[in-house]
Amino acid sequence: MQPADALTRAESLIGTIPDYPEPGILFRDITPLLADADAVRAVTDALIEPFAGRFDIVAGVEARGFLLAGAIAVAAGVGMMPIRKAGKLPRPAASVSYALEYGTATIEAHDDLTPGQRVLLVDDVLATGGTLIAAHELVAKLGGEVVGTAVLMELEALGGRAAVGDVHALFTA
Amino acid sequence: MQPADALTRAESLIGTIPDYPEPGILFRDITPLLADADAVRAVTDALIEPFAGRFDIVAGVEARGFLLAGAIAVAAGVGMMPIRKAGKLPRPAASVSYALEYGTATIEAHDDLTPGQRVLLVDDVLATGGTLIAAHELVAKLGGEVVGTAVLMELEALGGRAAVGDVHALFTA
Repeated sequence: MQPADALTRAESLIGTIPDYPEPGILFRDITPLLADADAVRAVTDALIEPFAGRFDIVAGVEARGFLLAGAIAVAAGVGMMPIRKAGKLPRPAASVSYALEYGTATIEAHDDLTPGQRVLLVDDVLATGGTLIAAHELVAKLGGEVVGTAVLMELEALGGRAAVGDVHALFTA
Repeated sequence: MQPADALTRAESLIGTIPDYPEPGILFRDITPLLADADAVRAVTDALIEPFAGRFDIVAGVEARGFLLAGAIAVAAGVGMMPIRKAGKLPRPAASVSYALEYGTATIEAHDDLTPGQRVLLVDDVLATGGTLIAAHELVAKLGGEVVGTAVLMELEALGGRAAVGDVHALFTA
């Protein structure tokens, strides 16, 4: 299969669950894609492609971003950094809080970056962009340089691209 | 570097945090290992090695197990299945509850396994084994066959090996 065909097939494996987690929300379910070996390889390579050779470590946002970060780390031959929800790390070196629709959320990371290290940020979905903006800030606080942001799917109606800036999204909805 | 040297070096990157998350607990911190490209590749290959060619999908336990599952999926050319904590999945097809020191925990997964599919279970640490025993049961409920269990580190004093059965642990403490 050509890469474009493999990506089209991978996209077809993403499910939609109406009214989850709330009425009116159409949830994008990537687990059928993840269960497929060819789809995993295709999306991993495609997430990396614009940034190949330009990043030293991949930072994944808890929790689905961890699955993609692990895949990218091996495919690109780099290390990985988990960006965790608050309270999960024994020695958080930086934390960033951001607004949700109701209340706030906080993300944290250890100080496992070296100064100037080039970081690719990855998550499964770009929605409003709040988490990814906070992740950019977190990497900057730790002395790293975000060279790109990659997601499987962009939910265009939520305007995250305008908020985050340049994002490499494989699929849109 | 020979594989054994690379593994020794990877092990040296695992940190220890005293009194976390509670007094008296020595927390094993794998994030410095994960941040190192060579260490990630070494542990990924070593986690797979006894099971090479004998599994179709890797199931990672939330959340640190996701990082390893993503890495193994690409290295072995298989798909991956997230085993999640309760309430995170829109269409849980099976769930298993198990006892903690205080209270209970529940893990869930979607029905993305095909009948008889050969599953490698992965997590970062084997402690008492409660989560991994539940994960075995979860895979069985979904019609899959666990062909192996792999962890980075086994905490021998907690007796998890006796509870879970055969576990492939790269490091012991």
